[in-house]
Amino acid sequence: MVRLSALGYLKLTQTDKFDISYAGAEANVAVSLANYGMETDYITCLPENPIAERCIMDLRGHKVGVDHIQRSGKRMGILYLETGSNARSSKVYYDREDSSIATIQPGSINWEDILKDAGWFHWTGITPALSENAAAECLKAIKIANELGITVSCDINYRGNLWRYGKTAAEVMPEMVACSDIILGNEEDCEKVFGIKPQNFDVEKTNGVVDQSTFCSVCKQMMQKFPRCKKMVVTLRGAINANHNTWGGVLFDGQNLIESRRYDITDIVDRVGAGDSFMGGLIYGLLHYDNDKEALEFATAASCLKHTLKGDYNWVDIFEVESLMNGNFSGRVLR
Amino acid sequence: MVRLSALGYLKLTQTDKFDISYAGAEANVAVSLANYGMETDYITCLPENPIAERCIMDLRGHKVGVDHIQRSGKRMGILYLETGSNARSSKVYYDREDSSIATIQPGSINWEDILKDAGWFHWTGITPALSENAAAECLKAIKIANELGITVSCDINYRGNLWRYGKTAAEVMPEMVACSDIILGNEEDCEKVFGIKPQNFDVEKTNGVVDQSTFCSVCKQMMQKFPRCKKMVVTLRGAINANHNTWGGVLFDGQNLIESRRYDITDIVDRVGAGDSFMGGLIYGLLHYDNDKEALEFATAASCLKHTLKGDYNWVDIFEVESLMNGNFSGRVLR
Amino acid sequence: MVRLSALGYLKLTQTDKFDISYAGAEANVAVSLANYGMETDYITCLPENPIAERCIMDLRGHKVGVDHIQRSGKRMGILYLETGSNARSSKVYYDREDSSIATIQPGSINWEDILKDAGWFHWTGITPALSENAAAECLKAIKIANELGITVSCDINYRGNLWRYGKTAAEVMPEMVACSDIILGNEEDCEKVFGIKPQNFDVEKTNGVVDQSTFCSVCKQMMQKFPRCKKMVVTLRGAINANHNTWGGVLFDGQNLIESRRYDITDIVDRVGAGDSFMGGLIYGLLHYDNDKEALEFATAASCLKHTLKGDYNWVDIFEVESLMNGNFSGRVLR
Amino acid sequence: MVRLSALGYLKLTQTDKFDISYAGAEANVAVSLANYGMETDYITCLPENPIAERCIMDLRGHKVGVDHIQRSGKRMGILYLETGSNARSSKVYYDREDSSIATIQPGSINWEDILKDAGWFHWTGITPALSENAAAECLKAIKIANELGITVSCDINYRGNLWRYGKTAAEVMPEMVACSDIILGNEEDCEKVFGIKPQNFDVEKTNGVVDQSTFCSVCKQMMQKFPRCKKMVVTLRGAINANHNTWGGVLFDGQNLIESRRYDITDIVDRVGAGDSFMGGLIYGLLHYDNDKEALEFATAASCLKHTLKGDYNWVDIFEVESLMNGNFSGRVLR
Amino acid sequence: MVRLSALGYLKLTQTDKFDISYAGAEANVAVSLANYGMETDYITCLPENPIAERCIMDLRGHKVGVDHIQRSGKRMGILYLETGSNARSSKVYYDREDSSIATIQPGSINWEDILKDAGWFHWTGITPALSENAAAECLKAIKIANELGITVSCDINYRGNLWRYGKTAAEVMPEMVACSDIILGNEEDCEKVFGIKPQNFDVEKTNGVVDQSTFCSVCKQMMQKFPRCKKMVVTLRGAINANHNTWGGVLFDGQNLIESRRYDITDIVDRVGAGDSFMGGLIYGLLHYDNDKEALEFATAASCLKHTLKGDYNWVDIFEVESLMNGNFSGRVLR
Amino acid sequence: MVRLSALGYLKLTQTDKFDISYAGAEANVAVSLANYGMETDYITCLPENPIAERCIMDLRGHKVGVDHIQRSGKRMGILYLETGSNARSSKVYYDREDSSIATIQPGSINWEDILKDAGWFHWTGITPALSENAAAECLKAIKIANELGITVSCDINYRGNLWRYGKTAAEVMPEMVACSDIILGNEEDCEKVFGIKPQNFDVEKTNGVVDQSTFCSVCKQMMQKFPRCKKMVVTLRGAINANHNTWGGVLFDGQNLIESRRYDITDIVDRVGAGDSFMGGLIYGLLHYDNDKEALEFATAASCLKHTLKGDYNWVDIFEVESLMNGNFSGRVLR
Repeated sequence: MVRLSALGYLKLTQTDKFDISYAGAEANVAVSLANYGMETDYITCLPENPIAERCIMDLRGHKVGVDHIQRSGKRMGILYLETGSNARSSKVYYDREDSSIATIQPGSINWEDILKDAGWFHWTGITPALSENAAAECLKAIKIANELGITVSCDINYRGNLWRYGKTAAEVMPEMVACSDIILGNEEDCEKVFGIKPQNFDVEKTNGVVDQSTFCSVCKQMMQKFPRCKKMVVTLRGAINANHNTWGGVLFDGQNLIESRRYDITDIVDRVGAGDSFMGGLIYGLLHYDNDKEALEFATAASCLKHTLKGDYNWVDIFEVESLMNGNFSGRVLR
Repeated sequence: MVRLSALGYLKLTQTDKFDISYAGAEANVAVSLANYGMETDYITCLPENPIAERCIMDLRGHKVGVDHIQRSGKRMGILYLETGSNARSSKVYYDREDSSIATIQPGSINWEDILKDAGWFHWTGITPALSENAAAECLKAIKIANELGITVSCDINYRGNLWRYGKTAAEVMPEMVACSDIILGNEEDCEKVFGIKPQNFDVEKTNGVVDQSTFCSVCKQMMQKFPRCKKMVVTLRGAINANHNTWGGVLFDGQNLIESRRYDITDIVDRVGAGDSFMGGLIYGLLHYDNDKEALEFATAASCLKHTLKGDYNWVDIFEVESLMNGNFSGRVLR
Repeated sequence: MVRLSALGYLKLTQTDKFDISYAGAEANVAVSLANYGMETDYITCLPENPIAERCIMDLRGHKVGVDHIQRSGKRMGILYLETGSNARSSKVYYDREDSSIATIQPGSINWEDILKDAGWFHWTGITPALSENAAAECLKAIKIANELGITVSCDINYRGNLWRYGKTAAEVMPEMVACSDIILGNEEDCEKVFGIKPQNFDVEKTNGVVDQSTFCSVCKQMMQKFPRCKKMVVTLRGAINANHNTWGGVLFDGQNLIESRRYDITDIVDRVGAGDSFMGGLIYGLLHYDNDKEALEFATAASCLKHTLKGDYNWVDIFEVESLMNGNFSGRVLR
Repeated sequence: MVRLSALGYLKLTQTDKFDISYAGAEANVAVSLANYGMETDYITCLPENPIAERCIMDLRGHKVGVDHIQRSGKRMGILYLETGSNARSSKVYYDREDSSIATIQPGSINWEDILKDAGWFHWTGITPALSENAAAECLKAIKIANELGITVSCDINYRGNLWRYGKTAAEVMPEMVACSDIILGNEEDCEKVFGIKPQNFDVEKTNGVVDQSTFCSVCKQMMQKFPRCKKMVVTLRGAINANHNTWGGVLFDGQNLIESRRYDITDIVDRVGAGDSFMGGLIYGLLHYDNDKEALEFATAASCLKHTLKGDYNWVDIFEVESLMNGNFSGRVLR
Repeated sequence: MVRLSALGYLKLTQTDKFDISYAGAEANVAVSLANYGMETDYITCLPENPIAERCIMDLRGHKVGVDHIQRSGKRMGILYLETGSNARSSKVYYDREDSSIATIQPGSINWEDILKDAGWFHWTGITPALSENAAAECLKAIKIANELGITVSCDINYRGNLWRYGKTAAEVMPEMVACSDIILGNEEDCEKVFGIKPQNFDVEKTNGVVDQSTFCSVCKQMMQKFPRCKKMVVTLRGAINANHNTWGGVLFDGQNLIESRRYDITDIVDRVGAGDSFMGGLIYGLLHYDNDKEALEFATAASCLKHTLKGDYNWVDIFEVESLMNGNFSGRVLR
Repeated sequence: MVRLSALGYLKLTQTDKFDISYAGAEANVAVSLANYGMETDYITCLPENPIAERCIMDLRGHKVGVDHIQRSGKRMGILYLETGSNARSSKVYYDREDSSIATIQPGSINWEDILKDAGWFHWTGITPALSENAAAECLKAIKIANELGITVSCDINYRGNLWRYGKTAAEVMPEMVACSDIILGNEEDCEKVFGIKPQNFDVEKTNGVVDQSTFCSVCKQMMQKFPRCKKMVVTLRGAINANHNTWGGVLFDGQNLIESRRYDITDIVDRVGAGDSFMGGLIYGLLHYDNDKEALEFATAASCLKHTLKGDYNWVDIFEVESLMNGNFSGRVLR
């Protein structure tokens, strides 16, 4: 997907140029993993045109595997972004209908072949939102991953404006989530897709003051609903204003709720993609640390840093993330 | 007036390019009203050159009526702006002498004709500051509006550096303000033009901590001095630093002092034009809400949002303003 | 030295353009002094190429004397900068090896002649860090300044990454600092070069909460070690995050520790060069005010303002600094 | 339609920003006419989003009537442009499928009402290329214009890549062209849509050397095929390379072939939209000059100047066009 | 004077930014001379504001003496520029009325003191065009230069749009030109100010084909009218289109007409300031070469190169000019 | 190597930003080959810093193999570029001393391993120019390639300013060239390195008029001197001015001299890297076409197109090159 952003804090109606970058929930996760030195492959459909060509160059430059990207369909999806400030929200406008991935031909991807040597399969709720075909193909991939014994992670990633093809997330998602081993959601996803929310919690009323422990019940309910799930993870964003958020996460392993450090993020540069950078950090963390606590802290620190970087990708390396995990958040100049 | 701004936070001595935008206290109000769907006409003089041509295109694009702009005179006024940060103030340099509006020929505008179908006439203290002719023509318009029974609003808008033609604001303004039905001032205007200030109030000593109720006495004194005035409105800016202000307003209807919500505005993008955006919101609000309280809250919310937008204009629509009025200031991404 | 900065908050790996500016610890001090109306000469070596040519034009434009800059050697040193935000640090990468100043030929500068009419000589710990030749030439200049009775000031300015030619700062600096009348350091310099630090002080643990008085012992130890020193000055930076620091200084005259006002600097635009702007303010202050307290406050206010300006130079004038010294930090628009 | 152009001469795969402008064959004609002081209305469908909002602001700024633009559908069409140089062609990629105009609901535009006071109706071959609905609605408008006795002009404007909905131009266009009074084509249109071409003419073999008179037979055949046609006009582009073209036109009134001056256009800034600027000039010319020769020369001069302007619109006024018509092509600085 | 240029080939009505540079006929000459290593002083009036401050920094950076610039008056003159292409002319709009130099106070400049050590005084016809005061002060300077025996050169530099204060060039210029030793004009100046033109010459009809020898009679007539004149020099521009000119000059010493090489300048980057760069080259040439032929060739080559440089200044050095003089115009890459 | 270019046609002393791109004779060839779908590996040394990191991302994005790039040494070489126009030459300033490749440790690259599956090895005269170590390592690679029976091609690529380490090209190059199968030179290389030039040929005197057949004797002499050489190829640039060159090539196979089409390249966008793009086209051509004539035409067409692209790389694909080879140089818009 190409992301076209108004310059600086200009509204989309003000800007005379677009900053071009490339984005997509799954692509963002792949870039994070590649930055941490992991081998990744990004599977999608992109058309045969120079915008898609550049997207692929960009991903390849980041060391994301692009050999399995299918070139078909008519167009790339577009995300228009204007960045808000203070009380003015950032706004995202999608122009993704009839994109190549939405019009994917069933059976056109040889998942068995692609996944046969894979160790992890990650999908997000964006893909089934795009079209019936995309949902079906995604489900197919998940099932094959299950058969191959590959860990499956999902980010619920609910975007109400994307579900336009006649089915709702509530109809489509449960079967897919049920096949996933690791589930990530944010404070709204579980509620909007599965109707599961913390008791007595009102996100509108408690901006900036989210009590992590209230999410314990959400996690428990999710795991009851989706028994395959081994770890339920929730990112918690406290929105003080468009430039100032708090950020943290909780991980529930069926027994204990682990809470991450909570970061106070002022002077946000770009928060779009933060959830994906969390997921990228989490996958890396779960595979490389001895315990879930460190994995969660890696994910939270990585995604805290994402807020300081323009574009959807999280251009940080392990050194930077671990430095923050270890408490170095003073921002002193490194020379 | 053309506004030439140094890029980013550069000083005027540093910048190698100017961002061009169009501005002017009355134009800014007109743009706000047009954004809220109201029919407006902007009356001024502009020269016959491409800078003025673009200014008119710009206003027309915003749906401001430009058919009554008189093309005469030699030059457009210029405002040079450098944007400060933290303890460094933003700076405005005016180059407006001998602008077309300053050299307007008496009698060259047919006010009776222009105003005959109007419902509201708004003027600001900028115009009489520019030249004797401009002051005379503005007064003439006000008087005709009075005769036609049109509501007249004014923004005192005192700029010491503009009054250079030999008369002071204290000499010129009272006759004009006396003909106005709605008067807007900020915390300095009433004091500097009419010598009316809150008792025991020192704006320098109380940066960021302005008690709205202390403005009750200011409003009362103004209404005593200007008995035609039906509503006296004061914007209250608490200046913590160049990026961080508090912002609110009070409205006095002769009986009660209504106070608006007070916003905490961090990460200011551009505060120039905020007073005009308040006035635009106030006119809209007084005409569209049942009560002054809502009108005042609309004005305050609208102008709070202005601080997040580059340029003098307030590019927000009713939906955005009402959303903020209703307490939605978390700045969460809208998708 | 040419400073090549990634645009905005982009990482060096993200940016497609560099902002070019000119920098260097001593050049920055000279620009500050020239901005305050003082006559200055900047002595260095620069190669014969257009990058150096532009650097000289730039300095000359700022009214810094450039007639004694020696044109020799192969290349200009480069500093690559990426600007961090929040928990992400700014990063500086030096490419200064074999620069013209590092390869200066011993004896090629006629210091006696250059310094004979000077009133003050300032050097920094950057120069001796670059090469054996640079250190030797700098020491020579200091000694000649001593002979001529010129006040010598130094900024310890320790940069671990620069000392690569086989000697350490601990070996080279003492002889040079011993010949200096005014010594400036920051909270790390004295410790890292001379092993002198406040008791029970841990800069990492106390981000943002630095007690000025704890620096009394540092100053005393420095003056004992370097008896020529008449004033020992320390800048104190509290690093809350990359955008938000506190900033102040202390000056010890052998008897009393004078503390400056402590500024809370949010929304930092560019903090590189702040120490140099402090030094520039201090030299001006010591020469133009009756007492050290005012000199220290001038230095602190000047360098507080530096944080709001892009580039290494401090483009402020005396009026702006004195206005802040006098408590005007509200950042209100000046028109 | 929004036009997203790679910066400068960068390829679409190279650029990191897009220049945003607004375009469309009919919109371009409308802008030209508005620039010449004529009242125009642009009828199309645009979605409810900020990209469309800005498009409308842009057109309104140019004084094109936008009150009849229908807000419906899902997306704006996009044209991606990379500008070639010398032997490298400029390239246009369309992403217009499912645009609002392509998905227009039959009967949703009240053509009788819109056209009842109009004097001229212009359509182009782009619209019927987009979808069956767009073709049907365009045909409906043409027929109503015929009924109302309004002059109808058309620009054949054949773009092979746009005809993707299952019908060919050869099937759809004849009925529409048959209802048109003035027909414009370029050297390829008549051949590719109607199979009518000059005898012994091969555009590939004669780059830059097009003999205007060979088009006489094309015009005659067209008028025989479309008897309603009163004037058949052909633009003639000689393509020496991407920066250097020759440009002229011929007009056949059924009797005589009038030839325009032939311009030698070097240093082309942007040739996209040239045909539309010709059409705009032609409509103006036919309505304001006494004879077809002057109309043709106005059209040719206007569109010659278009090649010097960035974007699809032709930002010139009557003075500039007539000055060129009168032989002033020296390009001397006007002060 | 500040020059505000639309970006690239955009019209002033299209551009959203201005490129800022500094300009002025006399300043441009001074920069050229400084580039060739000559000591220069630029005498003018500039206001006390940051735009003027930057102008002075800019000149000082170029090594032009700025110590005698008088700081007075209200505003800097502005020149708005849009750059044409092919048949579209570049356009200059002046906004120079009431600039500091136009409102100079008689007697405020101590010319005797400034000129006492000078070797050359250069003035242009721009200055007397601005106001009566400017003309008087310029005349005064010329007369003092005459008394001091300083060579006086003038560039007639006729700009019809500048003469607005009630007197014509024909009234004011003769007395001033009569005191000048070296006179430069272009192909229009002599005609428009003094009515002297080549017989049978029509600049409009002979674009691009100017016969240098026809200017012999112009030179002779000028020298008869102004007997003090020792060398009459004319620049000859053949305007093929806005990007392509021919360029050369003739010098008449009362006896012989020397003709320069004629350059064919394609792909013009910026031709504004070319005449001034010619004058700068001429002054240098006359002072440094043995004969007028070489001086003329230096002037012509220097100003040929000016056409390739953005801005009014001619950023070339002696090496580059002499290389072109010596026939090296192949433009091969120098590495 | 990083290439830092002044913006547009600005001089290096004028520009305030650098466009960053990546370059290097061998890297440029590798990018060309990758663009044509060939598998390539680029072998060099780059330091561990973000500038090098981005360079590698860039190459990887272009599908150039980067796995064998050795990370060592202190710095990346820099090339500063200013782009000339008309009579003003482009200028290149190298800052490559002590770059990682120049300080390569002998034996640090395992050539046997890297080359064991390769089909072609290409080197250029830039590498041995940088340092004794670089020359030795390059020679070692060539010899191993010879042993492995891999085709070796070389581009003589003489840059006088690079040979600074004490040896001359004439001393170092012969042994290396003698091991090469395909040799490319331009019109200066053979003369400056080996003293071989066409009889009666003076490149300065014949700008723009180079007779290809005169290069027959050069080729013959080269092949006599270097008997291993199977094809000697010479690019022929006719330099009319900085924007306008002619371009072609000849190939001598020991028997016949094949001449390519000669292109007339106006409006040059960027000619740096043209020789490398020729080499890239030649290698592709020799491997994919049946005869040398087509290979030569492919190389010439590919490098003709390079002149229209910003940066050192040749971003064209086979389709574009073959289209030009087939005579399609009209530059018509492709839609």
